[in-house]
Amino acid sequence: MSKVMVLNQKAIEEVLDMKQVIEVIEKVYLSKSTDSAVVWPMIFYEFEPGNADMDIKSGYLKENEIYGLKLVSWFSENGKKELPLLYGTTLVFDSNTGAPIGLLDAEYITGMRTGAAGAIGAKYLARKDSENLLMIGAGHQATFQIAATLIAMDNINTVRIYDAMDLDKAKSLSSSLKEKLTEKFLSRYEKGTELYDSIAKKFDANVEVVTDIKEAVGKSDIIITATPSRKPMIMKEWVKKGTHFSCVGSDMEGKQEIDENIFKSARVYVDDIVQAIKVGEVEIPIKKGIVEKKDIIAEIGELVAGYTSGRNSDDDITIYDTTGIALQDLATSKLALDLAKEKGLGVEVDL
Amino acid sequence: MSKVMVLNQKAIEEVLDMKQVIEVIEKVYLSKSTDSAVVWPMIFYEFEPGNADMDIKSGYLKENEIYGLKLVSWFSENGKKELPLLYGTTLVFDSNTGAPIGLLDAEYITGMRTGAAGAIGAKYLARKDSENLLMIGAGHQATFQIAATLIAMDNINTVRIYDAMDLDKAKSLSSSLKEKLTEKFLSRYEKGTELYDSIAKKFDANVEVVTDIKEAVGKSDIIITATPSRKPMIMKEWVKKGTHFSCVGSDMEGKQEIDENIFKSARVYVDDIVQAIKVGEVEIPIKKGIVEKKDIIAEIGELVAGYTSGRNSDDDITIYDTTGIALQDLATSKLALDLAKEKGLGVEVDL
Repeated sequence: MSKVMVLNQKAIEEVLDMKQVIEVIEKVYLSKSTDSAVVWPMIFYEFEPGNADMDIKSGYLKENEIYGLKLVSWFSENGKKELPLLYGTTLVFDSNTGAPIGLLDAEYITGMRTGAAGAIGAKYLARKDSENLLMIGAGHQATFQIAATLIAMDNINTVRIYDAMDLDKAKSLSSSLKEKLTEKFLSRYEKGTELYDSIAKKFDANVEVVTDIKEAVGKSDIIITATPSRKPMIMKEWVKKGTHFSCVGSDMEGKQEIDENIFKSARVYVDDIVQAIKVGEVEIPIKKGIVEKKDIIAEIGELVAGYTSGRNSDDDITIYDTTGIALQDLATSKLALDLAKEKGLGVEVDL
Repeated sequence: MSKVMVLNQKAIEEVLDMKQVIEVIEKVYLSKSTDSAVVWPMIFYEFEPGNADMDIKSGYLKENEIYGLKLVSWFSENGKKELPLLYGTTLVFDSNTGAPIGLLDAEYITGMRTGAAGAIGAKYLARKDSENLLMIGAGHQATFQIAATLIAMDNINTVRIYDAMDLDKAKSLSSSLKEKLTEKFLSRYEKGTELYDSIAKKFDANVEVVTDIKEAVGKSDIIITATPSRKPMIMKEWVKKGTHFSCVGSDMEGKQEIDENIFKSARVYVDDIVQAIKVGEVEIPIKKGIVEKKDIIAEIGELVAGYTSGRNSDDDITIYDTTGIALQDLATSKLALDLAKEKGLGVEVDL
């Protein structure tokens, strides 16, 4: 008999704060680079090609004393049934005993850990004096990316939002951003504390909707792309010296968000080298022969560990290509379980 | 948000009855042979070789409208912490929507589906007039095997129990068997019904402890082996014409329960041909060149489907080598979920 904590999205939203998630994901990257983490082979199955599929990603995080899996199902017809198209479920085990310890909805955790990933790219690779953040894509992931990057960086004063597909979406995000940041992220900290005040100040950046992407790119120090795009939206000629890219959207063969030529003269980092080459933003530049595998400087964990250097000068273009790994979900799930226990949230069941 | 039913061992014991489980497992075998079921690749990881490991077995059962996985962890040091050495956890999803529907403890279900598997071997391959059942191994699995085989067959009047390692265990099982059969299996049926009476009558077979295995083998029509043995316990010369074997214990490389020479003149069936050759009872006979892969007549599902014949005469020796497949766990879990819903058992959580 085991005590298993069940955390749904509501409970997870209540316990997770982005600053802690960023710290957890940095440690995951570090564990991966120091071989104290293992990613197991992914299982992927298409029930109906192009219409319904599922994958199981699993792994072991020695330092967090957990292993487990995340199963994500995508059923394109669910909209007609008024059900979500995606279901994500995470199951966590204690690696000291093998006992199941947690069952969690994966959606909000995926948002948090992906936001943290983009921000960690900026933290380790962007210029410290970066003031202008350009968010490409105004979908579900955008708020997580903006919140995390504002928290991870110290000098951002302008956030620009661009959406190639849907200007109204960009406008709507822009007008609701402050409220969302306050409600979903700032409210996790205690009012009156130094931490609260510092994050509140960071969240007070100007927010603008962008229609001329070329002009916006030219003004940006940090560009985060989180779209389902299959062709480049940002051309090399538009990019000013010293720009950092966190490419978050590409996680499947054929996806591409930025001009492959940007890679030629950029310093390129990835979260997982095998996966990035297969499905990340670096897939196309490698397939087109613009860069080779050896041109990828390192996995980000090696940068976090200090095994390799990041940007060499204020003029470098840097790219962090993140495809997302199960270890991020597991570590963030463990954080949520620990916090929920502390705060008496979630439902504990006898399994 | 999904409604997920959590079923622990207690709830599962209350809802499952062996007759229904046998029917469900027969259908699983049928689905497998008619390509409406898919087994996904197994993930196996050793945390400490020989001391702690885990595996994830997963698959899709189209007809049952489910997919999912069973994760089994084995931590040999758990005994010192007064924890179980094995933890099994099953997660079930609705294949129409991708939504998670159930989280179940896997232990009791594994017992039930394994008992059903051995009995189905007997049902399809043993002589209909079989009267003598010999159970080799008096461990946890023995009661499940005996209960299922008594239910699946019509004429068994004597159950003999042998344990090569521990005579006391055989004695203790023998003296408690009637009570266990009544309490754990018969009590699932409604008193006074025809079904109850017929099973009660079957459970009224004589029970004997056996010390002379050679003699006992010579008297047996059906022999079920469920031990962790790594060398044959039953020699070919002892086996009378017409005997059926259900070999349940071998599920790992190097395990063996019966003389490999028995295979030479037997009609051999398996649950999964790839897995059986790798880790089943048929592994050693094939490795020793006694039989070849082509000598395996069929997977049992083809027999259930009527694609192939079973025993040809009352003199045939038949062998069913079952290693266990995840689809059995998933289908039995779905049965438990359906019954629990009907009976208002289990705990439903909002995930």
